[in-house]
Amino acid sequence: MYSLHSQLAADTELVGRLPLSDVLLMNNAELPWIILVPRIEGATEWHALREDHRAQLHHESILISQTLMERFNGDKLNVGSIGNMVPQLHVHHVVRYKSDSVWPKPVWGNIADQPYSPEVLEKMLSHLRKVLTKTGKMFRAD
Amino acid sequence: MYSLHSQLAADTELVGRLPLSDVLLMNNAELPWIILVPRIEGATEWHALREDHRAQLHHESILISQTLMERFNGDKLNVGSIGNMVPQLHVHHVVRYKSDSVWPKPVWGNIADQPYSPEVLEKMLSHLRKVLTKTGKMFRAD
Repeated sequence: MYSLHSQLAADTELVGRLPLSDVLLMNNAELPWIILVPRIEGATEWHALREDHRAQLHHESILISQTLMERFNGDKLNVGSIGNMVPQLHVHHVVRYKSDSVWPKPVWGNIADQPYSPEVLEKMLSHLRKVLTKTGKMFRAD
Repeated sequence: MYSLHSQLAADTELVGRLPLSDVLLMNNAELPWIILVPRIEGATEWHALREDHRAQLHHESILISQTLMERFNGDKLNVGSIGNMVPQLHVHHVVRYKSDSVWPKPVWGNIADQPYSPEVLEKMLSHLRKVLTKTGKMFRAD
C-alpha cells in the first residue's frame, strides 16, 4: 500500500491531491517549491511506471510548473526527479530567482533550512489550494 | 533559427537526433550522462512548449531514461531540467551509482571534470548509437 516516505512527510505540507499524485509544499519559505509524489506503491523511477501513469505524471508536472510560474513570476523553474536520498519517486518543482540565496546553484544540498512561520504557511497553502482548484484539473484540497 | 548553446556544445558530443531533440553525451567519463535539447528556437521551459512538443519531449526523455538504465545498470537515474547557467532548454539524464564519487549529492556543481579519452569516447558514442537505433524510435545517428 502507498504511504509517504517519512523524510518527505517531515519536510513538506500536504497541499492536496491530483488524480495520480499528492501535491506537497516544501517547508522552505525562501522559494515556492512543490513536490509531486505519485500514489503508487514501490515506485522509484518515472520511466519504470506504467505508460498511463507516466503520462499522467507528466501532465501533473506540467500543471504544477505552469501554475507556479504564473503565480510566482520566477526567473527559472527547476524540475527534477533525483531520489538519491529518498528513493520514493518524487518530482521537485522549484521556482528560482536570480536574487535567491543560492542562485545559480541547484537548491539540492545547497539551500539552508528556513521553514515557513505558521501564519505564512497557512496563507501559502490556502493560496495554492485556491489556484489549483481553479485549474479545473481534478485537484482536491481535502 | 535553432542553434546549440556554446556551453552545451563545449561540454558534450552529439550522439544523434530524435524527432524533436538532439541527443548529447556529456563528456564526463565517470557517469553515463545524456542531455536532450529540443531543436526549438528560444525554448527555455518545458511547460511553456507547445503541447505536442511537450509530449514528444516527455516520450524522448522516457526513451533515454529506459535505454540508459537498461544498458548501464545504475542504482538511480537523476533527471532534471534546471537551466540556471545555460538558459536553453535541456534535460539531463544521469546514471548514478552508490559507488560514484559524489553519491548521494546531485552531480550539478559537485562532480569534477573528467573527460573521456578519445578512444573510450568513440566506443561510447558508437554503443549509444547502436542501442538507440535498435529502439525503433526514429533515432538518426547522422
